[in-house]
Amino acid sequence: MTDFSEMDAYLEAHLDASIAELSRLVAQPSVGAQNWGLAECAQLVAQMLERRGFAVEIIPTEGAPVVFAERQGLSQKTLLIYNHYDVQPPEPLELWDSPPFEPSLRDGVLYGRGVSDDKGQLVARLHAIDALLDAGNELPCTIKFVIEGEEETSSTHLTDFIMQNKARLQADACLWEFGGVDHREMPMQYLGLRGICYVELSVESLSTDCHSGMGGSIFPNAAWRLVWALNTLKGPDERILLPGFYDRVIPPSPRDRALFEALPDVADEYKKRYGVKEFIKGLKGGTELHIAEVFEPTCTICGLTSGYQGPGSKTVLPARASAKVDFRLVPDQRPDEVLDQLRRHLDDGGFSDVQITYLGGDRPARTDPDNPVVELIVRTAEPVYGVPMQIVPMVGGSGPSHPFVHDLNLPVVTAGAGHPGSLAHAPNENLRLDLYLKHARHMVRFISEFGK
Amino acid sequence: MTDFSEMDAYLEAHLDASIAELSRLVAQPSVGAQNWGLAECAQLVAQMLERRGFAVEIIPTEGAPVVFAERQGLSQKTLLIYNHYDVQPPEPLELWDSPPFEPSLRDGVLYGRGVSDDKGQLVARLHAIDALLDAGNELPCTIKFVIEGEEETSSTHLTDFIMQNKARLQADACLWEFGGVDHREMPMQYLGLRGICYVELSVESLSTDCHSGMGGSIFPNAAWRLVWALNTLKGPDERILLPGFYDRVIPPSPRDRALFEALPDVADEYKKRYGVKEFIKGLKGGTELHIAEVFEPTCTICGLTSGYQGPGSKTVLPARASAKVDFRLVPDQRPDEVLDQLRRHLDDGGFSDVQITYLGGDRPARTDPDNPVVELIVRTAEPVYGVPMQIVPMVGGSGPSHPFVHDLNLPVVTAGAGHPGSLAHAPNENLRLDLYLKHARHMVRFISEFGK
Repeated sequence: MTDFSEMDAYLEAHLDASIAELSRLVAQPSVGAQNWGLAECAQLVAQMLERRGFAVEIIPTEGAPVVFAERQGLSQKTLLIYNHYDVQPPEPLELWDSPPFEPSLRDGVLYGRGVSDDKGQLVARLHAIDALLDAGNELPCTIKFVIEGEEETSSTHLTDFIMQNKARLQADACLWEFGGVDHREMPMQYLGLRGICYVELSVESLSTDCHSGMGGSIFPNAAWRLVWALNTLKGPDERILLPGFYDRVIPPSPRDRALFEALPDVADEYKKRYGVKEFIKGLKGGTELHIAEVFEPTCTICGLTSGYQGPGSKTVLPARASAKVDFRLVPDQRPDEVLDQLRRHLDDGGFSDVQITYLGGDRPARTDPDNPVVELIVRTAEPVYGVPMQIVPMVGGSGPSHPFVHDLNLPVVTAGAGHPGSLAHAPNENLRLDLYLKHARHMVRFISEFGK
Repeated sequence: MTDFSEMDAYLEAHLDASIAELSRLVAQPSVGAQNWGLAECAQLVAQMLERRGFAVEIIPTEGAPVVFAERQGLSQKTLLIYNHYDVQPPEPLELWDSPPFEPSLRDGVLYGRGVSDDKGQLVARLHAIDALLDAGNELPCTIKFVIEGEEETSSTHLTDFIMQNKARLQADACLWEFGGVDHREMPMQYLGLRGICYVELSVESLSTDCHSGMGGSIFPNAAWRLVWALNTLKGPDERILLPGFYDRVIPPSPRDRALFEALPDVADEYKKRYGVKEFIKGLKGGTELHIAEVFEPTCTICGLTSGYQGPGSKTVLPARASAKVDFRLVPDQRPDEVLDQLRRHLDDGGFSDVQITYLGGDRPARTDPDNPVVELIVRTAEPVYGVPMQIVPMVGGSGPSHPFVHDLNLPVVTAGAGHPGSLAHAPNENLRLDLYLKHARHMVRFISEFGK
């Protein structure tokens, strides 16, 4: 057994410096949806890796550039680490207790957009690498970083990037960008991500808004057209109505079910945290809630906009209306097929006036819970967290893991500094420093053992 | 026949002074929705009436005050004139060619917020009164003004005001605040206004937004709840589905139909102005389009808002969603009944989670096209406009005419300086000086004859 006490001491001693480095990274806005600061952030990340002796290349794509970095290690093994430097939009700004791009440390918690998702994870990993290099001057294995800038905007160009760079991305395993503890402070191993197909549906019924007193009885109303079209996608029973939508869905296996049965009931936790009075589809909690959460595909309205939205009343008949809609997909659904199904369904239902703009997608992908790398990352967590890491066979979120799993043929494992109150994607996104340190300690152990 | 040439000459000679007075009134902002300048504007209007020998009282209400003014005339007849001193918000400011509260005269057209709706009409009527007083030292009839400050915010307190002041509002007829020519420059007599019931529907399904990857399969989505609730109000066939909604609807009479048949087809004009490809309900144009436009009640979505509405994608499950909805009502529908029907319909359909906020309403009201005052205002227009005034039995818009018609028992007639390009409620609202003068000339004739 390697003795990690010296490296743990290094991580503690240099924590403030690492958080200062993270704060500089968070202060650089990198909002993909608003095309704000991506190039600057990629540069900053590249410099951070160069300082650690990585060979770094900022590789252009048709969208945001990918930062690719590589440093040889002592063994023949290669770990590919996937992170992203882009963040979600900070809005609504008025709900932040401190400005989203001015990181603020309060009571051992760092607040700011991206501190958790996913700049914190990246810098914690660099912190672990610093400890490994400090202890041994060399990395235990070769480490490659793929750090993209479009994760929050559906990783539109990442699959192409991977297909074009398969040779240099060769590795033995992939460490995913996120991870963390659940509400019991138990470290979790999330295997598998749902896919996604994100679209904007829009209608233009007139060339200009008009007075509702005038046009209400005779003009087509874009907001009504949109509401009616959306209603044909899913009814109050939550069944998605695109013909063929469920054809490729693979139900959970007995092994999946057993893994979920080992997890605690989250019903009360969710009800408290999100103010849910009742779950949909009659779900009450327990294993069925876990399985529904991740093994059922969804159709979610993420946004609606049309006409007058200010205080009080304005009597306007809107010429334009639009909705943001995401479909979460489970193995083996495909975003391109869903897009085709959606167009056909709208046309067949008389809604050819509804335009579809494809805003990105990912295919679902899973890693076998019995893969040895899974066993390793679980085993190396326990000394750090003091409790065994629990395996979750799939999670509800999405990400571009499909090409890593299916084109690079890598097991993908997860670990990170997240917690259920991280508020990723929301105001007051935050990072607990105790979990940041634990993640770094876990990574020191995982990378050491992986390299053997 | 009275000879009006002397009064016409007076109106011409004092036109510049009258426009200067109007400009001072327009320069005083009076934006009800923004609670901006209402008291100051009421004072200014009161002074303008006092200068003309009216007994003026600024009467408080629970909202903006009403300016009430009265001056005795030679005959026993009394004309009640309804105007308003409030205006629509000026936004979007960037689309104005000159600042909205700095009236600008260009090529015989005055631009500014409220020049048309409805300060121009008020001052044109004062201009006519000046001419009448100049010619005869006395008014031909008693004139009472009711000038409210909440017309643009649903006249919330006007009905109460009228009910509390019935005695002093006694009159023989009411001249309404608006009127003007159509796109052929033909003066129009608009009789009857639809009612309105304006509501905001809102849903809060969670205490906070959450990540769509997490909650999509298990949490109620406010945007979906709103879409499904709206869909139960009206389907693509445009039939409004509230039980009992159509019970009180009175269809147009043969006389109404005949009046509409005398009007030109507006189908091409509407298609061009609003970019309409096809009217709803299979309407093609002609009399059926006119009748549908005003004799059918509506349910119009005026606005939709929920979740993320910016560029690109954000994977959020919205906790809140809301819609602005107006119902336009025809005789004898009532906004209070529609509000009850709506609540019951939503509850019965399983949508008791949808909150209704009532933002204001008016009851529909009509004046008999064969009333002698209608005949008089039509007859006195022809020498001014050179063409006969055309009677439109009802218009699609709404206003607080119900208590004037049904509680004060007055015929309500319309006349004004408006034209189809007035851009009331929009940037570059404008007043054509030729039509301003024509309206004053018409009013001189109408008031003179009315007093006989």
